[in-house]
Amino acid sequence: MEPEKNNLRYVPKSVIKRLALYCRILHRIEMDGLTRISSKILAQFLGITPAQVRKDLAYFGQFGVPGFGYNPHDLRIHLKKILGTDRIINLAIIGVGNLGKALLSYVGFKTQGFKFIAAFDLDQRKVGRKINELKVSSINELEKILKDSDVDIVVLTVPANAAQEVVDRLVKCNITAILNFAPIRIDVPSHVRIHSVDLAMELERLSFYLR
Amino acid sequence: MEPEKNNLRYVPKSVIKRLALYCRILHRIEMDGLTRISSKILAQFLGITPAQVRKDLAYFGQFGVPGFGYNPHDLRIHLKKILGTDRIINLAIIGVGNLGKALLSYVGFKTQGFKFIAAFDLDQRKVGRKINELKVSSINELEKILKDSDVDIVVLTVPANAAQEVVDRLVKCNITAILNFAPIRIDVPSHVRIHSVDLAMELERLSFYLR
Repeated sequence: MEPEKNNLRYVPKSVIKRLALYCRILHRIEMDGLTRISSKILAQFLGITPAQVRKDLAYFGQFGVPGFGYNPHDLRIHLKKILGTDRIINLAIIGVGNLGKALLSYVGFKTQGFKFIAAFDLDQRKVGRKINELKVSSINELEKILKDSDVDIVVLTVPANAAQEVVDRLVKCNITAILNFAPIRIDVPSHVRIHSVDLAMELERLSFYLR
Repeated sequence: MEPEKNNLRYVPKSVIKRLALYCRILHRIEMDGLTRISSKILAQFLGITPAQVRKDLAYFGQFGVPGFGYNPHDLRIHLKKILGTDRIINLAIIGVGNLGKALLSYVGFKTQGFKFIAAFDLDQRKVGRKINELKVSSINELEKILKDSDVDIVVLTVPANAAQEVVDRLVKCNITAILNFAPIRIDVPSHVRIHSVDLAMELERLSFYLR
């Protein structure tokens, strides 16, 4: 069944956040050779109620069969379509320091269908170098290169004090999705999505269990 | 009021996950100069119901005043105590490639009270070098150095095919908390906590909004 695309703008952010998680869990279940899974088991993996799982999925149409559950493969394919990750998604990265270089070679991006097609840095010594077969361009050429490219999402790995200025330029280039690693709050117009990755938060969660 | 420590083992994982998020939001609210916040506003930030916020916090004692809400500063200090992040937490990192180097200099860790006290690598050319004033040790010395140190959490940034073997060694060294960046499933005994960071998941969530 096709997801009802008209209603997607009303889906809560927390549900979208869980969609990618559902995909991972379903993939793992598939790899384990299982051909069905209940909302109860899915709920256990996520630490929510089975009713919440059914409500989450109901935003996107009718999946699964009452009393049988879901087919993990079919459900995952559906969710990938909804997320828009059933096609290659083009990335650009800005800031080719240690983190930038690490992300450019991060295997997990490639296996999930993400592809870096542009990389930028301010440092002229890095410009022209190749990292993972991708040539680093000067940040001065940002507007020119983005205009002619099909970049979907920009990954931002610049120092905190440079982040806002770079984002302002990206917004003018009609970039609407940014993954930010700079530990600073950035303002964007309401039509632009910026997600900030906070790596310290994962450590804080682990700290709880040290007692 | 002191949190009821006896009951902490029954706190659902999803609640612990939200605690660090509450801390971030409360900090932001404090910085904005606000001296009270309702469970309704907290709930909006997290995309959950106000009842869920009150239920989450009730695991740890009685906070806030009905009809008034919470004092953001006091609540944050309480939550940090519960998370165990009201003291310096010592980290070791294994694998000093690009990602390892980036994490060693990640400002966000330091500001949240995390401190790297040991770094290891297999590559003998890296051993003895200093990164952010921390000397890289040989992985051959892992057991010896961990035995005499107060490492709380190990950050794992080794290639996927080396991850399980390193984790087995860490478990033997009585390490009970691991933050894993290797894109692979790792088995640990039930008393060990391993959290895996999946950077592709953030991109998938952004993809949804590209439509």
